[in-house]
Amino acid sequence: MNNTLQIIKIGGKLINDPEELDRLLTAFDRIKGPKILIHGGGRKATQLSKQMGLEVKMIEGRRITDADTLEVAVMVYAGLINKNIVAQLQSKGTNAIGLTGADGNIIQAHKRPVKTIDYGYVGDIDHVDGDSIYRLTEAGFCPVFCAISHDQQGQLLNTNADTIASVVAQSLADRYDVSLKFCFEYDGVLHSIDDPTDTIDSITEDLFDSMKEDGTINAGMIPKLSNGMDALRGGVREVAICGIENLLHLDNATILSL
Amino acid sequence: MNNTLQIIKIGGKLINDPEELDRLLTAFDRIKGPKILIHGGGRKATQLSKQMGLEVKMIEGRRITDADTLEVAVMVYAGLINKNIVAQLQSKGTNAIGLTGADGNIIQAHKRPVKTIDYGYVGDIDHVDGDSIYRLTEAGFCPVFCAISHDQQGQLLNTNADTIASVVAQSLADRYDVSLKFCFEYDGVLHSIDDPTDTIDSITEDLFDSMKEDGTINAGMIPKLSNGMDALRGGVREVAICGIENLLHLDNATILSL
Repeated sequence: MNNTLQIIKIGGKLINDPEELDRLLTAFDRIKGPKILIHGGGRKATQLSKQMGLEVKMIEGRRITDADTLEVAVMVYAGLINKNIVAQLQSKGTNAIGLTGADGNIIQAHKRPVKTIDYGYVGDIDHVDGDSIYRLTEAGFCPVFCAISHDQQGQLLNTNADTIASVVAQSLADRYDVSLKFCFEYDGVLHSIDDPTDTIDSITEDLFDSMKEDGTINAGMIPKLSNGMDALRGGVREVAICGIENLLHLDNATILSL
Repeated sequence: MNNTLQIIKIGGKLINDPEELDRLLTAFDRIKGPKILIHGGGRKATQLSKQMGLEVKMIEGRRITDADTLEVAVMVYAGLINKNIVAQLQSKGTNAIGLTGADGNIIQAHKRPVKTIDYGYVGDIDHVDGDSIYRLTEAGFCPVFCAISHDQQGQLLNTNADTIASVVAQSLADRYDVSLKFCFEYDGVLHSIDDPTDTIDSITEDLFDSMKEDGTINAGMIPKLSNGMDALRGGVREVAICGIENLLHLDNATILSL
């Protein structure tokens, strides 16, 4: 029986609200044993881009990460957000260490190939070095990842945070009993946005497929659930969608299963 | 006999020039054994502040780090510069990991007390956790520090990079034979700015004192030399001021001694 490793992914909305973020970090600090935090972006990158007079570049409704946009992402995600989270976790007693995927060569990716759209400096992940992460957790550090990877040729790349959470979890599945929790503003996946207390207890692959087909699932949840299912297939023991309130006990949370 | 640990501090001027920075990182990559890079800021923070429409606040000729300025420093130093250096070192084969003093609670500081001037979010260092750094170097990582510390209460603080280099070196002096090199645009401390090839071979504390008194030393060199002397007093085996060309062999470099 391996040790349990808790991996918590938090999204932009929690990061935008300092009080919510503080509540989340307080809950995260209470988790015993090895743990990893993975965070998304939040509004600040868009604000900074505007302040710098940069245009948001969109092609066919998709946001493009040009060189300036990548610079802002690195400054805001790896600098401002990541290091403030680290400082706040340290103040609570968690021995956080803030990382991108370039640090320790942990998240290796390649720039997404140009087909119809050139997404710019967006990374598709090739490999996660679970051994490097393991050396950090076993040395007593709590890794805090932002959603930046690299191509091993010196180029940083903007990368989806849900995907990072899933592949990081999978990379450690043979070393720990990994529990991966996508933490967001509700207690779990909702039956309907009209009732934020009415959460779905469990989502199987079959249910997920039918929800996608009949459109009863919020579009924003699809990547989280896809990444969650990937994690289960990759050997992660438990995947849940939950809120801050039920992060520690998972009451009303949505549990994924294959 | 301990292992040798090489600590290299690089300043803003090297960082401003991508080609020079690449030459430096190539030389740094060639250093065998455990090593640490510490970097200053460079022009980018000033550029970004201007782009964001922030005023540079000065009181009695001293730059003040207000909340906005600190935000820019964290974004540029801990984000943009630090993570690009890490990605470039990884591309060359050095297993870099980019850190502030908040990461791993490594550099603990307090906000400089207000006497006649409130410098704002500037940190004076209380303690460096050499043990945490040691665990990283022994786990095969090459720490790359930017000049940001924290107060253990959740506040990041802007901190002098030369001082960080000196205290980090001292914190490891009982675990390694530490060599600390301040790397800048000349081969060593110059007798006169008029001849950039004519370097001073060695500076003792007595010579340093007399140079300060008679004003024959460039004002910008004084903090480097002071921090270097502190490092020697704190058990660091070798302290040198050198350039990129002589980083590996120290020909024409200036060697400090007590």
